[in-house]
Amino acid sequence: MSAQRYKITLAYDGSAFHGWQKQEPPDEEPLRTVQGELESVLVRLLGTPKDQLRLMGASRTDSGVHALGQVAMFDAETTIPIDRMPQAINARLPEDVEVRRAEVVPSGFDVIGDVTNKQYLYRVYNAQKRPLWSRNAVYHCFSAELDVLKMNDAARRLIGTHDIEGFAAAGHGRESTVRTIYDCMAFVDPTHPDEVHMTVQGSGFLYNSVRIIAGTLVEVGRGRFPPKQIDAILKTADRRLAGPTLPPQGLCLEWVSYASRGD
Amino acid sequence: MSAQRYKITLAYDGSAFHGWQKQEPPDEEPLRTVQGELESVLVRLLGTPKDQLRLMGASRTDSGVHALGQVAMFDAETTIPIDRMPQAINARLPEDVEVRRAEVVPSGFDVIGDVTNKQYLYRVYNAQKRPLWSRNAVYHCFSAELDVLKMNDAARRLIGTHDIEGFAAAGHGRESTVRTIYDCMAFVDPTHPDEVHMTVQGSGFLYNSVRIIAGTLVEVGRGRFPPKQIDAILKTADRRLAGPTLPPQGLCLEWVSYASRGD
Repeated sequence: MSAQRYKITLAYDGSAFHGWQKQEPPDEEPLRTVQGELESVLVRLLGTPKDQLRLMGASRTDSGVHALGQVAMFDAETTIPIDRMPQAINARLPEDVEVRRAEVVPSGFDVIGDVTNKQYLYRVYNAQKRPLWSRNAVYHCFSAELDVLKMNDAARRLIGTHDIEGFAAAGHGRESTVRTIYDCMAFVDPTHPDEVHMTVQGSGFLYNSVRIIAGTLVEVGRGRFPPKQIDAILKTADRRLAGPTLPPQGLCLEWVSYASRGD
Repeated sequence: MSAQRYKITLAYDGSAFHGWQKQEPPDEEPLRTVQGELESVLVRLLGTPKDQLRLMGASRTDSGVHALGQVAMFDAETTIPIDRMPQAINARLPEDVEVRRAEVVPSGFDVIGDVTNKQYLYRVYNAQKRPLWSRNAVYHCFSAELDVLKMNDAARRLIGTHDIEGFAAAGHGRESTVRTIYDCMAFVDPTHPDEVHMTVQGSGFLYNSVRIIAGTLVEVGRGRFPPKQIDAILKTADRRLAGPTLPPQGLCLEWVSYASRGD
């Protein structure tokens, strides 16, 4: 038996997690993170020593951000059949995170470098009454005039390959700030008519980019920015021209795709 | 200005509450309850001394149980117009509870004694995968054969005026155990096809009755009890013939109605 590389697809409710990335400050209690919970389950399940297990995720989701299709990889030697793997992990995971799929991938698979496209969803709850049941999964704003047509006019101006630094938080730490946005749109959710959803699909993003894009589209929807504000932000790369960074709980990583696996 | 009696209708996510009823054990930290949170807001808003405010609820929902239409009453002297009352209270309430309606009622209105009918909903999530997003609002069971037709056959046998002690937890402490069930049914939720919902409407219930009725209907749906088991439970009043008490998080108080207010 030799080590194989595993790719797992995860869903989680980010409300009670301090984000994806493990945070174990010295001399302090470790914070509850998705990576941390999953690693401790894998160590017990696979018998891999803790210091040898390397679990890497496709996206470092922030505290409070959700996922329907986060992807992670790890190497392991195990006799657990691949079709039993999700159930075996889930039986040990807390109830706010679950493995939805597990695959064996070639040993050269790179969960970060091989990403071709990923999609995020941002949910805005636009009503005067409070979002009692979905309060940890939406951004609550109340604007009588959230104009979805104008938001879509703005959204489609984002499609293409651009410098997106105007939509990034300071200190993003990336050398190249050029990314390809494959799709971006805004729509009223048919099953929750009080919600306006925005989806953004791209080759990659900078820190807080999706939350800033969502904040900019909401400003357009409210009539505070014209749709062509997007063109100015892309042209000048000036963060001050964009809208606010919306709060984390409205954000969800929907899926990550890899050309190498044909999905 | 003289005191008036107010009736308020409340929704809450019961997940983080120790039920409706205030629990302030001596020499201990008070537990977080809906009544406790609401009373402290009303004391601040109305200026009524804490020991003089009496807030009474129609139903003592248990820890973890939700409400869409709990009803409560209190007496107050205030200049706050009735149409501003919900907003004034909500602005001070935590985000997991909200006032949906406020009315001035006659001083003889009795929030418990005048109830004519109330409806509870019980949600069962019937799928192998875990109910990630709704885990605090459903009971998770997995049965390939939850037969809703049989559950409805059983449910309609509950309709009528009966001794319902066979569906009550021991120590319910009520003298009369006769109640009228106006309606009871089971159905697949059209917007969540993995969920089977059960609703029960009645003049009143005993302790844990709705959770035991739901547990009995699920046993029928799984084929462990025949639908006519209901007749035997009603006839013998024997708790041991009924199904298990399902967990609190699947239960929601949908509405309470009062003939005296015509609603």
